Amino acid sequence: MNQEAQWLLPDGVEEVLPGRARVIEQLRRRTLDLYQQWGYELVFPPLIEFLESLLNGAGRDLERETFKITDQLTGRLMGVRADITPQVARMDAHSLRENAPTRLCYCSSALRTRPAVAGGTRLPYQIGVELFGHAGADSDLEVISLLLETLKLSGLDQTIVLDLGHVGLFRGLVEACDLSEAEQYQLEDIYVRKAKVELESFVAERNLPGKAGEALLALPWLAGEPSVLEQARTLLGEFPAALDALTELSELVDVLSQKGIRLHLDLGELRGYHYHTGCVFAAYLPGESEPLAKGGRYDQIGEVFGRARPATGFSADLKMLAAHLVAESNSGILAEGSLRDVKFAASVAALREQGERVVLALPGADNDPQVLGCQRKLVQAENGWVIKDI
Amino acid sequence: MNQEAQWLLPDGVEEVLPGRARVIEQLRRRTLDLYQQWGYELVFPPLIEFLESLLNGAGRDLERETFKITDQLTGRLMGVRADITPQVARMDAHSLRENAPTRLCYCSSALRTRPAVAGGTRLPYQIGVELFGHAGADSDLEVISLLLETLKLSGLDQTIVLDLGHVGLFRGLVEACDLSEAEQYQLEDIYVRKAKVELESFVAERNLPGKAGEALLALPWLAGEPSVLEQARTLLGEFPAALDALTELSELVDVLSQKGIRLHLDLGELRGYHYHTGCVFAAYLPGESEPLAKGGRYDQIGEVFGRARPATGFSADLKMLAAHLVAESNSGILAEGSLRDVKFAASVAALREQGERVVLALPGADNDPQVLGCQRKLVQAENGWVIKDI
Repeated sequence: MNQEAQWLLPDGVEEVLPGRARVIEQLRRRTLDLYQQWGYELVFPPLIEFLESLLNGAGRDLERETFKITDQLTGRLMGVRADITPQVARMDAHSLRENAPTRLCYCSSALRTRPAVAGGTRLPYQIGVELFGHAGADSDLEVISLLLETLKLSGLDQTIVLDLGHVGLFRGLVEACDLSEAEQYQLEDIYVRKAKVELESFVAERNLPGKAGEALLALPWLAGEPSVLEQARTLLGEFPAALDALTELSELVDVLSQKGIRLHLDLGELRGYHYHTGCVFAAYLPGESEPLAKGGRYDQIGEVFGRARPATGFSADLKMLAAHLVAESNSGILAEGSLRDVKFAASVAALREQGERVVLALPGADNDPQVLGCQRKLVQAENGWVIKDI
Repeated sequence: MNQEAQWLLPDGVEEVLPGRARVIEQLRRRTLDLYQQWGYELVFPPLIEFLESLLNGAGRDLERETFKITDQLTGRLMGVRADITPQVARMDAHSLRENAPTRLCYCSSALRTRPAVAGGTRLPYQIGVELFGHAGADSDLEVISLLLETLKLSGLDQTIVLDLGHVGLFRGLVEACDLSEAEQYQLEDIYVRKAKVELESFVAERNLPGKAGEALLALPWLAGEPSVLEQARTLLGEFPAALDALTELSELVDVLSQKGIRLHLDLGELRGYHYHTGCVFAAYLPGESEPLAKGGRYDQIGEVFGRARPATGFSADLKMLAAHLVAESNSGILAEGSLRDVKFAASVAALREQGERVVLALPGADNDPQVLGCQRKLVQAENGWVIKDI
């Protein structure tokens, strides 16, 4: 391997250089401040945990996405988190144990064995919120509203399409069908792949109650304008659990439609919703296959941590959210002098105290003001140090 | 394993709960703003890299501290960074390639296979700066001054003791001794352990030039007040390279003494300075064995990345820096209403716009104002929504 190639980064692993890093940091602060104002408390879940703690309750997809490492202190397997949501759920159930609704937010790196889409990242800088302790439309609406505010900070709220679905439609239907666990798994897999021919065989080979077969066949293709909700209502009339889910979803659609958000309903969507149980959503930029942000309800995850609490939340990759924002150029003062000179050091300190960015010119170095982002300089005048334009 | 134990975190792996996380985030912002004002540009080096890229030039200690994982896309070994400094050096040498001095800063998680000291963390939230492209006392002084400003933000600058040393004393002496690489390695190991008897045998068994043996025997115990510099000058008189190092160190001591910092010289200290070449330093809280922050000069590291640049910098664990800071309690308004109510939603939005923290009371939930950090509430009055004390 030649030396150049040796320092290439692995696919899906990016370094963030100055300028871009500043944009991301600014968005991080504004977004976390937003969450703080909505009552969401910042936490830092640990980068690694024992594997069973990290994966339990989080669905089988996450295991494939998680890098495993061995704890040299105990010999036990640990994992580097591929997703932060399950960690926050563990913290709610195990470390915080409040009765009141618990609102948490985070912004930390996660690591995936493979990118979610071709050319995507394996190192999302995951930012998100989770709301525990409330089931129903009010908490769904709070979290979706906060997602829209998050996108507003990135300047993207008017650009995106919000995909909306409800895992309860599929679940309610399947419950009524009296399928074995293996059959449910098979059907879920068919839904994720939207494999029409396989779905037709699956339904034809089974004796399903009432209109269940018809509904199962139609659901994956009930997608588009909010009008698909009416079609679903006709198909699901016999299945009360699925109908309840449909009512929840319709309520949300009513409120969100009034906000002028472009909605896209997807009533049979299960892909990417590993551990979700209720309303699910994802914000897409037109033409992109990877969502900018996604989330939904996952009421059962706390159970494996010894305490079931209803939960909803969303997450996004801050690097993607910041991708459309432009870095402001640096403004600064180049200061030629030595910190050993007490008067010079005091002048520099005073300028920084006033909020100025002051870069020292180091003796003998190529202190190019343009490269150093300086438009002014601090020079010695008769009565002390003064600022001049470069 | 019982369920309780299952969710225990591995030793040296911590989660950070609300309150403490807020303190750390505030210190993160203030510290990164300080670095920005000194001309240090934020970067985000990637959490993982190919192993050779991560370890090259960084000294052998780092390999033991680095968790290895296999890239499923290429089969090549990758590592989760145990230290961020070598990554930043790679970015300077390979990605940025400026001629001007390059000042970079970062604040990201690192991961170590074992804690640096018993009971320490394996997950430092590493914050630091690196200054590339200048050799000499001016850049050393800039970086040490910035370290002291960093400690000031944590309220610790008057509490700490600053350990100062210079790897060039040992290196200059060893150069003059014409030792094989294996002998140098052995001697370094003896120095790190301050193994007196072994050191005496090592010196006795060899025919070392002039006063070299005497100096080698004395150096590890030349520690304490700045007066040890004079003792060293006598011992090292014959060895020009070591003497140059001593002069550099003395200059720094002169300037820093005037700042009222408690200094502790340690002229034979090599421990923890994996890849350092010049002046080295560490800030300790009295009685602690793990430094709060440490750094120094490492002029050769860029070489393996195809471009040798002089370099100096320091790093610290932000969680340790924040440990002595206290969280302010949350102030907030509990708002009882539904976001579906347009007037209520507008009142809440307006309050948040003004910088207020507004927490929604969710229907049917135990919205305990104390747990939710709210001292006021938003209630419906005759002419709209008004704020009242709880």
